[in-house]
Amino acid sequence: MKTPPEYIDSLRKLNLVVYLLGERVSNVVDDPIIRPSLNAVALTYALAQDPQYEDIMTATSHITGNKINRFTHIHQSTEDLVKKSKMGRLVGAHTGCCFQRCVGMDALNALSMTTYDIDAKFGTEYNSRFLKYLQYVQDEDLVCDGAMTDPKGDRSLPPHQQADPDLFLRVVEERADGIVVRGAKAHQTGAVNSHEVIVMPTITMREEDKDYAVSFAVPSDTEGITYIMGRQSCDTRKLEKGKMDRGNVVFGGHEALIVFDDVFVPWDRVFMFREYEFSGQLVEQFASYHRQSYSCKVGVGDVLIGAAQTIAEYNGVEKASHVKDKIVEMNHLNETLYCGCIACASEGHREPSGTYYVDPLLANVHKQNITRFPYEIARLAQDIAGGLMVTLPSEEDLKSPEVGKYVEKYLQGTSDVPTENRMRVLRLIENLTLGTAAVGYLTESMHGAGSPQAQRIMISRLANVKEKQKIAKKLCGITEDE
Amino acid sequence: MKTPPEYIDSLRKLNLVVYLLGERVSNVVDDPIIRPSLNAVALTYALAQDPQYEDIMTATSHITGNKINRFTHIHQSTEDLVKKSKMGRLVGAHTGCCFQRCVGMDALNALSMTTYDIDAKFGTEYNSRFLKYLQYVQDEDLVCDGAMTDPKGDRSLPPHQQADPDLFLRVVEERADGIVVRGAKAHQTGAVNSHEVIVMPTITMREEDKDYAVSFAVPSDTEGITYIMGRQSCDTRKLEKGKMDRGNVVFGGHEALIVFDDVFVPWDRVFMFREYEFSGQLVEQFASYHRQSYSCKVGVGDVLIGAAQTIAEYNGVEKASHVKDKIVEMNHLNETLYCGCIACASEGHREPSGTYYVDPLLANVHKQNITRFPYEIARLAQDIAGGLMVTLPSEEDLKSPEVGKYVEKYLQGTSDVPTENRMRVLRLIENLTLGTAAVGYLTESMHGAGSPQAQRIMISRLANVKEKQKIAKKLCGITEDE
Amino acid sequence: MKTPPEYIDSLRKLNLVVYLLGERVSNVVDDPIIRPSLNAVALTYALAQDPQYEDIMTATSHITGNKINRFTHIHQSTEDLVKKSKMGRLVGAHTGCCFQRCVGMDALNALSMTTYDIDAKFGTEYNSRFLKYLQYVQDEDLVCDGAMTDPKGDRSLPPHQQADPDLFLRVVEERADGIVVRGAKAHQTGAVNSHEVIVMPTITMREEDKDYAVSFAVPSDTEGITYIMGRQSCDTRKLEKGKMDRGNVVFGGHEALIVFDDVFVPWDRVFMFREYEFSGQLVEQFASYHRQSYSCKVGVGDVLIGAAQTIAEYNGVEKASHVKDKIVEMNHLNETLYCGCIACASEGHREPSGTYYVDPLLANVHKQNITRFPYEIARLAQDIAGGLMVTLPSEEDLKSPEVGKYVEKYLQGTSDVPTENRMRVLRLIENLTLGTAAVGYLTESMHGAGSPQAQRIMISRLANVKEKQKIAKKLCGITEDE
Amino acid sequence: MKTPPEYIDSLRKLNLVVYLLGERVSNVVDDPIIRPSLNAVALTYALAQDPQYEDIMTATSHITGNKINRFTHIHQSTEDLVKKSKMGRLVGAHTGCCFQRCVGMDALNALSMTTYDIDAKFGTEYNSRFLKYLQYVQDEDLVCDGAMTDPKGDRSLPPHQQADPDLFLRVVEERADGIVVRGAKAHQTGAVNSHEVIVMPTITMREEDKDYAVSFAVPSDTEGITYIMGRQSCDTRKLEKGKMDRGNVVFGGHEALIVFDDVFVPWDRVFMFREYEFSGQLVEQFASYHRQSYSCKVGVGDVLIGAAQTIAEYNGVEKASHVKDKIVEMNHLNETLYCGCIACASEGHREPSGTYYVDPLLANVHKQNITRFPYEIARLAQDIAGGLMVTLPSEEDLKSPEVGKYVEKYLQGTSDVPTENRMRVLRLIENLTLGTAAVGYLTESMHGAGSPQAQRIMISRLANVKEKQKIAKKLCGITEDE
Repeated sequence: MKTPPEYIDSLRKLNLVVYLLGERVSNVVDDPIIRPSLNAVALTYALAQDPQYEDIMTATSHITGNKINRFTHIHQSTEDLVKKSKMGRLVGAHTGCCFQRCVGMDALNALSMTTYDIDAKFGTEYNSRFLKYLQYVQDEDLVCDGAMTDPKGDRSLPPHQQADPDLFLRVVEERADGIVVRGAKAHQTGAVNSHEVIVMPTITMREEDKDYAVSFAVPSDTEGITYIMGRQSCDTRKLEKGKMDRGNVVFGGHEALIVFDDVFVPWDRVFMFREYEFSGQLVEQFASYHRQSYSCKVGVGDVLIGAAQTIAEYNGVEKASHVKDKIVEMNHLNETLYCGCIACASEGHREPSGTYYVDPLLANVHKQNITRFPYEIARLAQDIAGGLMVTLPSEEDLKSPEVGKYVEKYLQGTSDVPTENRMRVLRLIENLTLGTAAVGYLTESMHGAGSPQAQRIMISRLANVKEKQKIAKKLCGITEDE
Repeated sequence: MKTPPEYIDSLRKLNLVVYLLGERVSNVVDDPIIRPSLNAVALTYALAQDPQYEDIMTATSHITGNKINRFTHIHQSTEDLVKKSKMGRLVGAHTGCCFQRCVGMDALNALSMTTYDIDAKFGTEYNSRFLKYLQYVQDEDLVCDGAMTDPKGDRSLPPHQQADPDLFLRVVEERADGIVVRGAKAHQTGAVNSHEVIVMPTITMREEDKDYAVSFAVPSDTEGITYIMGRQSCDTRKLEKGKMDRGNVVFGGHEALIVFDDVFVPWDRVFMFREYEFSGQLVEQFASYHRQSYSCKVGVGDVLIGAAQTIAEYNGVEKASHVKDKIVEMNHLNETLYCGCIACASEGHREPSGTYYVDPLLANVHKQNITRFPYEIARLAQDIAGGLMVTLPSEEDLKSPEVGKYVEKYLQGTSDVPTENRMRVLRLIENLTLGTAAVGYLTESMHGAGSPQAQRIMISRLANVKEKQKIAKKLCGITEDE
Repeated sequence: MKTPPEYIDSLRKLNLVVYLLGERVSNVVDDPIIRPSLNAVALTYALAQDPQYEDIMTATSHITGNKINRFTHIHQSTEDLVKKSKMGRLVGAHTGCCFQRCVGMDALNALSMTTYDIDAKFGTEYNSRFLKYLQYVQDEDLVCDGAMTDPKGDRSLPPHQQADPDLFLRVVEERADGIVVRGAKAHQTGAVNSHEVIVMPTITMREEDKDYAVSFAVPSDTEGITYIMGRQSCDTRKLEKGKMDRGNVVFGGHEALIVFDDVFVPWDRVFMFREYEFSGQLVEQFASYHRQSYSCKVGVGDVLIGAAQTIAEYNGVEKASHVKDKIVEMNHLNETLYCGCIACASEGHREPSGTYYVDPLLANVHKQNITRFPYEIARLAQDIAGGLMVTLPSEEDLKSPEVGKYVEKYLQGTSDVPTENRMRVLRLIENLTLGTAAVGYLTESMHGAGSPQAQRIMISRLANVKEKQKIAKKLCGITEDE
Repeated sequence: MKTPPEYIDSLRKLNLVVYLLGERVSNVVDDPIIRPSLNAVALTYALAQDPQYEDIMTATSHITGNKINRFTHIHQSTEDLVKKSKMGRLVGAHTGCCFQRCVGMDALNALSMTTYDIDAKFGTEYNSRFLKYLQYVQDEDLVCDGAMTDPKGDRSLPPHQQADPDLFLRVVEERADGIVVRGAKAHQTGAVNSHEVIVMPTITMREEDKDYAVSFAVPSDTEGITYIMGRQSCDTRKLEKGKMDRGNVVFGGHEALIVFDDVFVPWDRVFMFREYEFSGQLVEQFASYHRQSYSCKVGVGDVLIGAAQTIAEYNGVEKASHVKDKIVEMNHLNETLYCGCIACASEGHREPSGTYYVDPLLANVHKQNITRFPYEIARLAQDIAGGLMVTLPSEEDLKSPEVGKYVEKYLQGTSDVPTENRMRVLRLIENLTLGTAAVGYLTESMHGAGSPQAQRIMISRLANVKEKQKIAKKLCGITEDE
């Protein structure tokens, strides 16, 4: 397993084409806006080296028997699935943001099943290709970007009916040595901190869209790939002199639009090629794993609860009954989320490929709650924080020779707490509810791994309502069905 | 294990003193208001005989190695705990009501731990007494009423300060051969369908209340015990000629006030005697187990969802997008509840006594959701059902030679469904949201195993907020604690 | 204006054909199940005689200039509309249930506008017929049942495509002296306490359904009309010896299915005849008025809040912070409802006929909240009440020579309050949340005056989203529309 | 009345001491971060000149009979109060942010009552001083900052027990010609766009805190006053080259900490001086008016609904049933808020001073909903917007010669809408839910005019629960009180 410095060094060797705020980024690793997101990924390497987290953060490869970072592991038991959920909460709590590495793990696990199943039906050899690739990822301890979401253009139209056929990523050329693809993947979390990009289709494809039914992996600096960084609320605070106004002074996240401008993929990196019949399965299995992955938000919730309790103490209101009750409610909602990611894991099962798969109904239910509760937890945190969270002067004002004394004097809370500390924790709550981290804690919770309606469709399909009707009819004496 | 007929026969042999609607009940087993509740308990015997449910409904006794009904089992693994949660959903779905037998199971498991811990501290021999008693319960496959809730009088006062000292059950005499107790236990679910009553204290006791720190078991027809049945909404519909207007035509629940008017308990049936230091632990452990037990409401929710889908079809609206969405929401909430009872079980652990204990934080979180979601599921069911649910004429009207034709003609839904069936399912929804089953699905969900505030106090104590504060402070750069 | 005794006498003169629980009711006025609903209507007469409520309960007829009961008044100003909302809350609070008389008022007001508008378009003379009828209603101070809801059969089909064409009420014969109608009206609130039945169509009709576009008024005992009473949760408690277990010892509501088996209506009582183009308007206007009328639930909410505070005091928990907070929340929700019925009234406007009409958007918004908040208020009331609400022994147990002493002793709350009083207020909460009054406070709040989805369709149509889009585009610099 | 240019000119004449991001602002009026907030205030002048809004935006002074801007008016009728609510929605919708001018209006109205009442009790002459001042404000058409909120330090301590006595603003010297005050006011909305600052105490004061019971008005550039601007999420986007990423390209808000470093106030500008008995009344009346003022958020909600509908159309999903339903829900919640601000106004009444006062219970209920519904409306807007809202590249990327083509190509929605427009409306939604406007729409909705708990305390005091208990007891037959 790589150490954090080794990971960072490995990134320096990549030659990524990255644009940020309209400019090409010359040094991605040290860019002040991007760096906090790299720090978060680096922590997934650091925690794996920490003996106290070994059980959660590492696993034994089912291919090589080597000890590997769990983020590169194929789940071999429900215990593995449960540990994955716990890893999400753990790293989420340590970073207070999106640490970006779960999406690749989920892509690997989904492909371990779908490639097996395609082979079983069509006699292809995707699974062996995939396992070779997997071993490379595990041996090198790589970060993979799992790239699923296409830009999608007009949502009411399928891929081939879009005004621009590239609005979904597709095969534009089939060659002897591989394929050429064109298109883009949006909202790519941690893209420029990744060594590899694993592409998957974004929806169930029909025959007429079979050129869009393609899955493959390429190194992240493959020719033809361009990264355009998304803006985040308050992103440019990272360019400021002081670090205090960032809220989270070390970690962050990022998302990028990845453009594939006629990118070549050799055959041994292709895991699905026009088998449109399996596109839906791959989407669904990746989505279920990734919905489980939102266990990370429970960890971020831990941070927000800790911040809320802290500001309550700094304001001298921690004993007010309504404040205590709001902290209870935040914990209650956060632990309800925890129940979801534990339950869908402990109720997982073995698929034919040998990979363990979460209970898809419960995974969808879990993610559906993730689209709701963090918003309420954030609202409660803002309630406890008080209005100062959004009217607080800047770090520069605190340090100003002219007005620093006023800021110091008048923004004092309880007399035993330095004003600066009060400002810091308020900035953290701002970060998590309005700033860069709110992007991950709120909006990404809404749309990441599929928007709420996507989960509702799955719940509708997976909840066995017919069976429930049978019981109901029996209890009230309706005999029609018998 | 007993068969249902054997169970019913065993009840006939009891000589219970039961009052219902102001009258002594001469034949408890065949009383039309009580019988549906007995039917529900009997189903816990029937399902244990059914091979398809063997894994869920039965277990292997850790004392005798015999196959026993899971309701008498001491949990030996987290797998046992998970099966307990599944058993709750299973039986809840098969009965559509409270089946009453979990409370005794929870009392047995809590006592298996507390008696062990008291002995460890004080060198007493409660655990061996208890295990002997347990074996008797397992061998005879008995139903135990777990009796915890005292009447409590003025909630702002502790036991010994009540105007009437009997408002909490207490020891009034200590004798060579045993003790004499006086008091009452309220809200006793399934009391008159039980062979045994296991009494526990209802709150943490202090030294001045040590006479109230008492736990014991007595046969349900012990001299001095009187049962006064509680009324339920729509209870007397069970006295009517037809069964249709009951909604649930077979099953029901009941609760009773049990009065202990100077009841004698021999020493070998006493499991705690003035060890007030352990009263809190016993309450807390019983409560956590019992909060898990509200997995049953997920099963009742299954019935209500099935009924709602059925009436939607009968009304011809099952394809309306808002109806489909409400069914999704009902399933989503119900499965969120399921996640809670699974997670607190799979995250359980072994206690010193060897018994496996649920995760108490998650068990409390689960029960807290139970105090909320069934109400919303019921509201949605009423939304889908339509107003007819509360304006429906009676079964007698449907059968009336004068107006039956009108009822038949005008209450027709889709033309392929008999009007009677439409009426039956509406009555079932009425039963579950306003009638006898609403008592269990709603109000008991609120207060059973402790009212909402009791869970909030536990959540407040068990959520490790200090740890969360440490992380939060670190992330925003506060160094005070280091 | 009639006195209550005069009202009751006038009912005795009617010869209604009423069926209840399968039997013809020989004496409707004194029937124990029906009587509480009559008492509630009678209170609308009593309060109109009370000088302290004169301003709210009475008005000046715009036809005769006489002082009339406001329930027969055509609104002449927004002040009138506001007083109507206040009257609803007032009578709701005095009865704790549905008092049934608003539906006729709303029918009269809607017809005052629609008849005028039909005449304006088609040169008919419906309005003058209607005004003559109105004067009769005002002079005699009559109760009118406003009958809109048809049985509707298969909801996915329009009237003429139903398997049975009578599932919507229709004209089956046109004669020189009038028309003959057949069909039924469901959920008719207070039907058998009414002197008159005013029939209106239930949905917007198209030309092929023009025989269903009919409105008229007939005396409630017209030949061919049969009433079949709907059952309510706990209805038969009114047949028991004592009154305590009813919860509300005086008042109640009822609903009936009214069957029109070829009923003749003379022309001067016909207010719409095949003018299908106006059926939608009549439905919409009646519905908006009637959605305003759900101000009554604010009054019922007052009762439930009062009951919850009372049981909190009786239990000795009224100072617990969570209890105080729940009472605040109940009040908050109840007053939010109040804001809705006040705002839709004060924002009303004059229609061409001279009648004042509520703001239809806000009336729909108000009713939509009515489908939600009473359920939450009821849930909070059950939370505060404690589980005893559903495990309470009967009045007969309290009075029993054998067990009365136990009930008295063990169900004592704070020592200064008689056990009986504690039982009474618990029964009232049961009545409002599970019993006969829950039918009105909950399920009727859901479906009366249109189910939730009906309001959502209206909100969708009435909220001027296009205008909002213009503003939004302008603010972000989109110039496409200009 | 001033024109917008006259208003801006008048601000140029002020000599304010303003600090922003650690630096003294040399030109406040043209500062790019502050200017959008000034634009919003200027619109209150512009709309008052627009004939179509004359009725809403202007009033007739009860002192001079002149036509004045309603923001300087003392309400003379409930009609005036209703118009005030409508003005809030109107200007909120036109600016999409906080327009800052209501707080001064609310301070003036509260002082018109409290000064009158102090005089009536103590024979002082505050009211005549105040009216003279009011005429000046009306004649000059001034913007007043209503400054109530003190920094408050340790919330568990009263003013005189704070470690630093200046944490509440107080009189430090009484002179023949006036008083000298020291302290600060936090969260001062629109402070540096104001001509005047009107100071009021922030809580009910007791005798020992009488030096804190002080109210007065001073010109905003009085010697000793320093303004320290609060940071807002995304504030520095206003410093960027393009305007698109701001979301709202014209308007904004601001808040400042105002420091009073021994500021002199002449007697004719003092409106309360140590009459601590009236501090509570002033706080309560100002708060009630100001809670009504949150009608503005209904207007901002209009903008957000318009933006959500627009992005739905741009994405091609506006006909999806779940999208339509979410738009309905947003409108429903927004109009529920509207009901609150209309109802508290139309139910207003005349106070002894002649000023019309809102219904304080309903005003508090309204504001309580404002602390909840905008968060849910924002959540729904984010749901509809899709994840792109937080992963969108910058305006500079769109304009980039290198990657602009990719952004243009791949972020196209429906083919008939320019990509730029799609980006603009997404930026507006970001602005309102995470950016500068979220500060006003969310966090200010939470805490402005008092945090949620402040309203709950008022609801608890103002809801007449005793009366409700009387009714409840009567209905269930409890006779103790009679």
